[in-house]
Amino acid sequence: MPALASKTEPGWAERVLAAPDELLIDHAHCEKKAAGTAINLIFRYPQRHFLLEPLSRLAREELVHFEQVVALLARRGVAFGFQKPAPYAGRLREGMRTHEPARLIDTLLCCALIEARSCERFQLLAETAEDPELRDLFGGLRAAEARHRGVYVDLAERLAAAEVVGERLAELAEHEARVLADSPPLPRIHA
Amino acid sequence: MPALASKTEPGWAERVLAAPDELLIDHAHCEKKAAGTAINLIFRYPQRHFLLEPLSRLAREELVHFEQVVALLARRGVAFGFQKPAPYAGRLREGMRTHEPARLIDTLLCCALIEARSCERFQLLAETAEDPELRDLFGGLRAAEARHRGVYVDLAERLAAAEVVGERLAELAEHEARVLADSPPLPRIHA
Repeated sequence: MPALASKTEPGWAERVLAAPDELLIDHAHCEKKAAGTAINLIFRYPQRHFLLEPLSRLAREELVHFEQVVALLARRGVAFGFQKPAPYAGRLREGMRTHEPARLIDTLLCCALIEARSCERFQLLAETAEDPELRDLFGGLRAAEARHRGVYVDLAERLAAAEVVGERLAELAEHEARVLADSPPLPRIHA
Repeated sequence: MPALASKTEPGWAERVLAAPDELLIDHAHCEKKAAGTAINLIFRYPQRHFLLEPLSRLAREELVHFEQVVALLARRGVAFGFQKPAPYAGRLREGMRTHEPARLIDTLLCCALIEARSCERFQLLAETAEDPELRDLFGGLRAAEARHRGVYVDLAERLAAAEVVGERLAELAEHEARVLADSPPLPRIHA
């Protein structure tokens, strides 16, 4: 995942795995939010035809993962419900440009960075978790997040030259690394 | 579909099929909005566990239909994009109660009515359209809308007795029939 500008610190996976149920609730919310974000992009940009099918498919895959995590929570006897989100996604958005098409490019690249960070961290979780059911879940999600990162970067490259997209991705990756470094240490994927 | 309090007037299908592309664009928006509504309910009521899996699955099915209609538009050389929506869904919402759990019950029942009306009208469209591709599409969508109506009513019956739900559904169906009767004659499923 060369997009990321920082590496997750040693001990992160052990820290968040100390509260596995809270981590799973967070992740169910993340999958739901990822689906919501993809659908919101379709609402906001219906005239950008190249976005529609890939984002709709991606939203469906996020919903499958949401259902998987909700089912796992039920098997573990954990109640899904409201949860204070990490400040990560909101702070990440503060780095986006507000004029078009830069706003759309930045939205797609921030989505790519969220997927890349999830991918990096699911790898760590899959390596660290002792519960085989959690290891399997995290390993499967890791692969999906890597694919999704590629989808978002490819879509951004429909709007600007690959070199321009790559430079902007590097800038936003620096911003993402700062946001994450400032995040309070909650048991969340992005904290 | 016994939930509906009125029958679509003769000639409706011929009228809207005079603008088939606008009708298809409308329907792509409707599928996208149906997915968005189901996901919004998951966002608003994460603690209502019985909603999560059925609504997530339903949202995924609406997205598959969205992709189908978008692909059909592309084959027909029609550009998808923004479109002035019919006032139907917004006016329908005006009939909902605002305190919980009545708000959630009414939201589910309004969704059931939208699905029931779509089902009735896709049946008419499938019988009337001359283009075999449109006939197939409308016939397939009709069956899905009937199933979705059942999903929404079943979910409402998790929140109140079937008799109470049935009475409220009948009241909201009267409201739906009035909203539709007042709708301007646009080439839309719900106009």
